[in-house]
Amino acid sequence: MANRSLWLIPLGGLGEFGMNMMALRTGDDILVIDAGMMFPEAELLGVDIVIPDITYLKQNREKVRAIVLTHGHEDHIGALPYILRDLNVPIYGTQFTLALVRKRLEEHGLLDQADLREVQPGGNAQIGPFGVEFIYVTHSTIDCIALAVRTPMGVIIHTGDFKMDPTPIDGRPFDLHAFARYGREGVLALLSDSTNVERTGYTPSERAVWSRLEELCRAAPRKVLVSCFASSIPRIQMVVDIAAAVGRKVGFVGRSMVDNVEIAHNLGRLRIPDGIVIRAQDLKSFDPHKTIILVSGSQAEPMSSLSRIAVDSHRLLSVDPNDTVILSARIIPGNEKAIFRMLDHMFRRNALVYYDNSGGTLHVSGHGSQEEQKLIVNLARPKYFIPVHGEYRQLFRHAALAHQVGTVSGEVLLVEDGHPIEFTEDGAFRRDPVTVGRVCVDSGSLEAIEEVVIRDRKHLSEDGIVVPIIAIDKHTGRVETRPEMVTRGFLPSDDGTELLNSSREVIMRTIEQSNAEEKMDWSVIKEKIRVDLKRHLNKQTSKRPLILPVILEV
Amino acid sequence: MANRSLWLIPLGGLGEFGMNMMALRTGDDILVIDAGMMFPEAELLGVDIVIPDITYLKQNREKVRAIVLTHGHEDHIGALPYILRDLNVPIYGTQFTLALVRKRLEEHGLLDQADLREVQPGGNAQIGPFGVEFIYVTHSTIDCIALAVRTPMGVIIHTGDFKMDPTPIDGRPFDLHAFARYGREGVLALLSDSTNVERTGYTPSERAVWSRLEELCRAAPRKVLVSCFASSIPRIQMVVDIAAAVGRKVGFVGRSMVDNVEIAHNLGRLRIPDGIVIRAQDLKSFDPHKTIILVSGSQAEPMSSLSRIAVDSHRLLSVDPNDTVILSARIIPGNEKAIFRMLDHMFRRNALVYYDNSGGTLHVSGHGSQEEQKLIVNLARPKYFIPVHGEYRQLFRHAALAHQVGTVSGEVLLVEDGHPIEFTEDGAFRRDPVTVGRVCVDSGSLEAIEEVVIRDRKHLSEDGIVVPIIAIDKHTGRVETRPEMVTRGFLPSDDGTELLNSSREVIMRTIEQSNAEEKMDWSVIKEKIRVDLKRHLNKQTSKRPLILPVILEV
Repeated sequence: MANRSLWLIPLGGLGEFGMNMMALRTGDDILVIDAGMMFPEAELLGVDIVIPDITYLKQNREKVRAIVLTHGHEDHIGALPYILRDLNVPIYGTQFTLALVRKRLEEHGLLDQADLREVQPGGNAQIGPFGVEFIYVTHSTIDCIALAVRTPMGVIIHTGDFKMDPTPIDGRPFDLHAFARYGREGVLALLSDSTNVERTGYTPSERAVWSRLEELCRAAPRKVLVSCFASSIPRIQMVVDIAAAVGRKVGFVGRSMVDNVEIAHNLGRLRIPDGIVIRAQDLKSFDPHKTIILVSGSQAEPMSSLSRIAVDSHRLLSVDPNDTVILSARIIPGNEKAIFRMLDHMFRRNALVYYDNSGGTLHVSGHGSQEEQKLIVNLARPKYFIPVHGEYRQLFRHAALAHQVGTVSGEVLLVEDGHPIEFTEDGAFRRDPVTVGRVCVDSGSLEAIEEVVIRDRKHLSEDGIVVPIIAIDKHTGRVETRPEMVTRGFLPSDDGTELLNSSREVIMRTIEQSNAEEKMDWSVIKEKIRVDLKRHLNKQTSKRPLILPVILEV
Repeated sequence: MANRSLWLIPLGGLGEFGMNMMALRTGDDILVIDAGMMFPEAELLGVDIVIPDITYLKQNREKVRAIVLTHGHEDHIGALPYILRDLNVPIYGTQFTLALVRKRLEEHGLLDQADLREVQPGGNAQIGPFGVEFIYVTHSTIDCIALAVRTPMGVIIHTGDFKMDPTPIDGRPFDLHAFARYGREGVLALLSDSTNVERTGYTPSERAVWSRLEELCRAAPRKVLVSCFASSIPRIQMVVDIAAAVGRKVGFVGRSMVDNVEIAHNLGRLRIPDGIVIRAQDLKSFDPHKTIILVSGSQAEPMSSLSRIAVDSHRLLSVDPNDTVILSARIIPGNEKAIFRMLDHMFRRNALVYYDNSGGTLHVSGHGSQEEQKLIVNLARPKYFIPVHGEYRQLFRHAALAHQVGTVSGEVLLVEDGHPIEFTEDGAFRRDPVTVGRVCVDSGSLEAIEEVVIRDRKHLSEDGIVVPIIAIDKHTGRVETRPEMVTRGFLPSDDGTELLNSSREVIMRTIEQSNAEEKMDWSVIKEKIRVDLKRHLNKQTSKRPLILPVILEV
């Protein structure tokens, strides 16, 4: 390693959607930016989340000075609870970001040993040899920052996730001036968010959603359910303000929604007028013409509140004729079928369902489009430009866009995970790859995070595999024969008949306790079986086999 | 059943996307409209296609007079080879539609016994008591018709799939006049395509694609690959004409592409200038600056030509730097991840890749948008309106749209599969449900359709299940340990060690014969293993177990 040089080592998010993580290294000091997770693809059956392989960081354990977080989304902070077990280093982040991290670490019993250091947007910190400025940027959640990192070779700017919202809900503007200042001073490399490179023009302001949301809430003949991402504090603020404006009370349903609202409210980042909140347990008895309820589960995650409400298996809330249901969120590719199946249930209950921008804007993206991406290049005028956060085609197109702009004085570098770039006095050089990859994490349950085990899949031979096969009659919803249980490498060496029989009972009970609509919805029933069976087998055997339920329609 | 009455019995496609099938019945005569298939959802592992349950038709076997086909798409004809085995009735369709059917039946060895009756758009046929007029409509394939069925209770119009293309490529306009004529005369019920009810305005003409396609082909620095649906004869015609205009030869790659081009050309429905075609086997040696190649596999189906080209495992064609790759097709929801993964491979090869309408129109829909849907209601002025072809929310929204229009003199009826409507002199009545459902079909292979078995999943206990578990090292692409084989209800009663060992060898060989990129692409490698193992097990045991490959990344 050259005496004076700076290395960029992408560990996640360059060539894939999610699990963002980037290391900067100069000499014996490493600074890590973000520690995100991603949701598994359908091929990865039985896995809950995926995090970056941090072999490189572990090999250089004593050099890692800190992890700096740009904002509180799962694809930027979600791997922290797993990574901190291996690598307990100081974590820098803004107030709201750290509040989310604190919650997560608490659930994992890791809060006590964590060293969390709060920073202010606009503030600075010296972290080893790195002088870091935290630049305020707008995005779909609050308290988001870009980073300007002063290194021996020059300034590296990492945008984090951003859009340039000219009229943000909280009135705090994107700090264009900081980018301009660095642009005048000179920037070695700009690392910029590629997510929306396929969209021309500008992303509309968060405020663009207001008028349509208010119109639907005013016109609603009965109660209103709004589902958005639980981290979208500006969107939640909007719904609260609209509720006040139209004279309705507001309720919050779903664990992540309740948690995030509480956190943001406690920090004074969510203004909730006195007396406007109605407790979730009072919703059923309250006048439905006077309520708006914020519900999590916009992506139809199998066990989420909105999914359960759709099939009428939620304890506190149901959808009745003439209720209004508003999906104020992006339909993430891959989730369409599940989301539309969920919305179909709502339509069948004769709800008024709104889920796209065809009748007025119900959702805007939190990521800047091409014009914003060009603008940030023109402001920062870097020597090197490196697209981050995107699948390969997005990085590729973002690189092409930066080429067009023409204010990159040196080179545009297309880089993927595991392929370091070294900046020296002589230029930028591609270096030998380092170990990167995806680590599958198998949490206890999606609903209640119990003890969590990082499961290298090599351990499959220890814990084995269980494939329960259930034949359900499509018309009656009845289970036709007793469930088949295919197992491998799992049963105790003595006779496992008893365990198999109790497992069958667990499955039968799970199905019996599901209602007709849940039984029609294979993704729901499979997830329920997986969760219940996992708990049962773990209790009985202390093992955590891979469980792959198969539903046969007969 | 009333003496003079007409029943509508929806058997598929009302409440789901695909497998369209509708029965009309008066007294002892049944007319069936379409016999489509659908592709299975990811939950239905190991199943190739899904077709409607025709129990109702089998129970009334002697009453079924014919199946009339509206056009040649798989979701309208794909179930025919399976249904004809049970119910060999005359099939009516237009020239191109029947040519596709003939091909399909030939592959299944059913052509000899089939009774195919060609009809002309604009023509008529008397089928039992039903007087049917075939009305020409425009869509994304050719030779498409709507049906006006004269029954004792009045005229039923079924639109089939349609858009109202004002400037179709072949110059033949949508027959507005026929709809107007029936509107003047009086229509009992209009059954209309709901697919695009979520889109406002008009769907652009097929011709809208021309200028962008020609521009890209003219500007292409090297060879051009265009992928579209193989049934999109107008799109294929456009590419052939553009090739002639820009002075390039045109090649056809992929089974469905080659088949459909041959069929359309033989019928004189595809004009191919002399000497312009280059044989697929000559593509590799021909000057790449002088070729445009039409390739099937736009949806990144695991074994399709385009998927294989993307990972450089195609015998006849590769993508090289500066080649142009154009996806001129819709990205069907659920396929995004596979399609983008495929395109990422193309980007990595430094191809110029175009896949959306952001820089100019590369694809238009074949289904009419809201304005066209309203127009057809206003032309036909039916007493009853029934949305067909769509998931529940689409039927719901289409019903709401028809309400708005106001020219439905009687009722708008929202009906789902299995729920008959009886029209009598006194009105329209909902009757008791009939048996409907989805039947899973397990074909021999996606590549070469061998003998096909309709497998009711009850037969699982006869043929069993095999779960091969393969641990692949993400970095080296090597198989780490010998494949695990979990089986149930499948192994012969005597020792199955030999069969398991030979199966392992088949899997290892399949993986060895795959290249590095295929090994990275789990969906490809799983499908290859499934197909090869199925062939092996069937040959060895004459059984067809359900095969669910699991790939573990280590």
